[in-house]
Amino acid sequence: MMHGNVIWRGELLENIKDHNADVAVIEAGLSGLSAAKILHERGLNAIVLEARDRVGGRTYTLRNEDVTYVDLGGSYVGPTQNRILRLADEFGIQTFLTQDTEDLIFHSKGRSKKITGAVPPVSGLLATLDVNNLFREIDEMGEEIPVDAPWDAPHAEEWDKMTVKEFFNQTIWTKGAWKLGEQTVNVCVTSESHEVSLLWFLWYLRQCGGSNRILSTDNGGQCRHVILAVPLPLQTRLTFDPPLPSLRNQLIQRVPMGSVIKTFVYYDRPFWQEKGHSGTAIIEDEEALVEFTFADTKPDSTKPAIMGLILAGRAKTCVALTKEERRDRICKLYARVFDTDQALKWVHYEELNWLAEQWSGGCYSAMMPPGFLTTFGRELRKPVGRIHFAGTETATEWSGYMEGAVQAGERAAREILFERGEINQSEIWKEEPENKVIVILFHI
Amino acid sequence: MMHGNVIWRGELLENIKDHNADVAVIEAGLSGLSAAKILHERGLNAIVLEARDRVGGRTYTLRNEDVTYVDLGGSYVGPTQNRILRLADEFGIQTFLTQDTEDLIFHSKGRSKKITGAVPPVSGLLATLDVNNLFREIDEMGEEIPVDAPWDAPHAEEWDKMTVKEFFNQTIWTKGAWKLGEQTVNVCVTSESHEVSLLWFLWYLRQCGGSNRILSTDNGGQCRHVILAVPLPLQTRLTFDPPLPSLRNQLIQRVPMGSVIKTFVYYDRPFWQEKGHSGTAIIEDEEALVEFTFADTKPDSTKPAIMGLILAGRAKTCVALTKEERRDRICKLYARVFDTDQALKWVHYEELNWLAEQWSGGCYSAMMPPGFLTTFGRELRKPVGRIHFAGTETATEWSGYMEGAVQAGERAAREILFERGEINQSEIWKEEPENKVIVILFHI
Repeated sequence: MMHGNVIWRGELLENIKDHNADVAVIEAGLSGLSAAKILHERGLNAIVLEARDRVGGRTYTLRNEDVTYVDLGGSYVGPTQNRILRLADEFGIQTFLTQDTEDLIFHSKGRSKKITGAVPPVSGLLATLDVNNLFREIDEMGEEIPVDAPWDAPHAEEWDKMTVKEFFNQTIWTKGAWKLGEQTVNVCVTSESHEVSLLWFLWYLRQCGGSNRILSTDNGGQCRHVILAVPLPLQTRLTFDPPLPSLRNQLIQRVPMGSVIKTFVYYDRPFWQEKGHSGTAIIEDEEALVEFTFADTKPDSTKPAIMGLILAGRAKTCVALTKEERRDRICKLYARVFDTDQALKWVHYEELNWLAEQWSGGCYSAMMPPGFLTTFGRELRKPVGRIHFAGTETATEWSGYMEGAVQAGERAAREILFERGEINQSEIWKEEPENKVIVILFHI
Repeated sequence: MMHGNVIWRGELLENIKDHNADVAVIEAGLSGLSAAKILHERGLNAIVLEARDRVGGRTYTLRNEDVTYVDLGGSYVGPTQNRILRLADEFGIQTFLTQDTEDLIFHSKGRSKKITGAVPPVSGLLATLDVNNLFREIDEMGEEIPVDAPWDAPHAEEWDKMTVKEFFNQTIWTKGAWKLGEQTVNVCVTSESHEVSLLWFLWYLRQCGGSNRILSTDNGGQCRHVILAVPLPLQTRLTFDPPLPSLRNQLIQRVPMGSVIKTFVYYDRPFWQEKGHSGTAIIEDEEALVEFTFADTKPDSTKPAIMGLILAGRAKTCVALTKEERRDRICKLYARVFDTDQALKWVHYEELNWLAEQWSGGCYSAMMPPGFLTTFGRELRKPVGRIHFAGTETATEWSGYMEGAVQAGERAAREILFERGEINQSEIWKEEPENKVIVILFHI
């Protein structure tokens, strides 16, 4: 920990009291740490409380001989994610360009096809028009949704009472577009289309810059203030005295975490490169565990690996398999997708099943079911007494990503600075200057 | 506490260890106490852990001079609820007949009409046919849903991916039937039709005996086993070591508690009786806080009162009002519904806002959103190691009611008896002999 102190769960609350801190930040994920950093820079005494025996929350870098290092949680950043890029600059963390996704594989109906561009082609003119229409429709609807108050959108009530599946039913005419639509929901919000609110989904894409951008490629003791950066559904774990207000008490029961298992298969050689593939594949196959892959070879070309995401419903089904069974099924899938038996010759396998993480609840982010935003949305960031809320779910830009975690943490810290008379109200929300780094963005 | 010991939250976990109990039952609601009773009767040493400073969970009897006593939580029982009636018999708790609902008021479009029968009339032949068709459809669909395994219903997948609102969209043709349908969802499951899964709603009505019946009128120390009777969403509050399996870890994030405020307005005289009304009213009015009323005068005719339920979305909106504002709006409503200014002359008011209850999360019961049952349903009652699950949500008959709490608690206790070799597997699930008490059933 670079700023303040971290109190681990093992330690008694008594220890917190001894700190006589100004602010207790609960959870040492990116959002909590960003908040603590801002407070520390203003000379406040902030302590950070963490339930795990590590910092980072939904980001986690595993280190061992087989992989050197690998990000089993959030890792990719991209254009317009200016806050996280600023922090990387500040701490001298080098970013590097991931594989060029302009050369990727679209695997559908058992066949692999090289494609360029973000959105996979669908066969037939009708399906192509249908897909274009779908994403145009999504973006146009998104345009009318205020990122900081989606519940105020002109159609907020109507859209919040619909699932994304209902919207697809009304909008999509071809099977090809359906599959692509479903896959977009899986990849973007680690949930199924029948689970999520249309209003929330439209807002989610909007606050990331629209469908094209997102698809191109994540009580304290004597303290005067508390910043709560715990994932929303895990806030039910805390006991509040006095109890939370009614709506907040019910809000935190209504936002389950998404479902994803992040997998890495390591190979001796980057066989995909030898065949002229970047390693990126979009896989449309009902039986496939993985729907999306990405090369994860180190920048110095060591440890060639394919990262694959097991998403939403597929993640829930395949937790019944063993780790080895998952690995073997994934390798067989990659042999079909990359059209080579080289894919069967794995040398190492890593995965993180975020569904089983007691202190995250899931990944990437909390999802919002029909009826949530219009009823509870206004409460998401509203302070309760001296408790302020951070966490990527409370962001208005790149919510669900590391960038959103930073925005939220810094905003929560500045709410406290404002309350202490150290800054003006207009300074709580801060635009971030553009950081022109070219990286491919993807979620986890 | 009549059986075993209750450990209150204030006491240290160390105390639990001293008990050297066979079973720890977590939560002293009806389900947990029913489990403890069964275990105690078999000579096992069971301790009950409770976070509140009272037993009863979602049942709570307030006693004071103004009301003598009043049930601010679950209170009504009815035919086919044989377990709860058996317990009432055993403990010598007298039940009494509530007001005859055959004479009730249907308040719609600003006018009150006396009606008989469970389902309010709608105006026009078309609307009447529409209502009849709706409930016939609901019951027929329910018929194909196994109460103990709704995920195995022939249409489980299809119905679980739909909200009840989508089903209404497809089925209902008239405005009258729509309003009645919405109100049925509000009253039965304290949620809005766009929030809940169609499969779950059909199952819920089915396991209570169909639409007509439901509408007629609600870590332990050294212990070898644990019975968890905490409401599902509050199970996230517990820390498990080893952590819960993936699906259970995500299940408990996906079942929010419903929303209801139970209100009581006390009067000098039962003015409704003087006008020939039972006190039961069904209120169809977008501005009305209360959708359903019931007389709550004591059996000895003292403390005349009208009980009114503020449900679902209305409950979430009106928590922004003060208690006094709610009381005044309710009295004004009753003046219109019962068509007399006598309703304005309240002498006392009580309410319990279940949304604000940290240790219940809401009431009556957890609700299941689209996609839940088919993905997570099988895990609801599946023991995890030596942890067994009780709570009304895990029942297969009258789930959501006090009766379901007892069924679930007793079943969980017998799972443990079976594991200890004290009973056969076939004895875990037990039919309950019919208890012929005539009472009007209603939910809370």
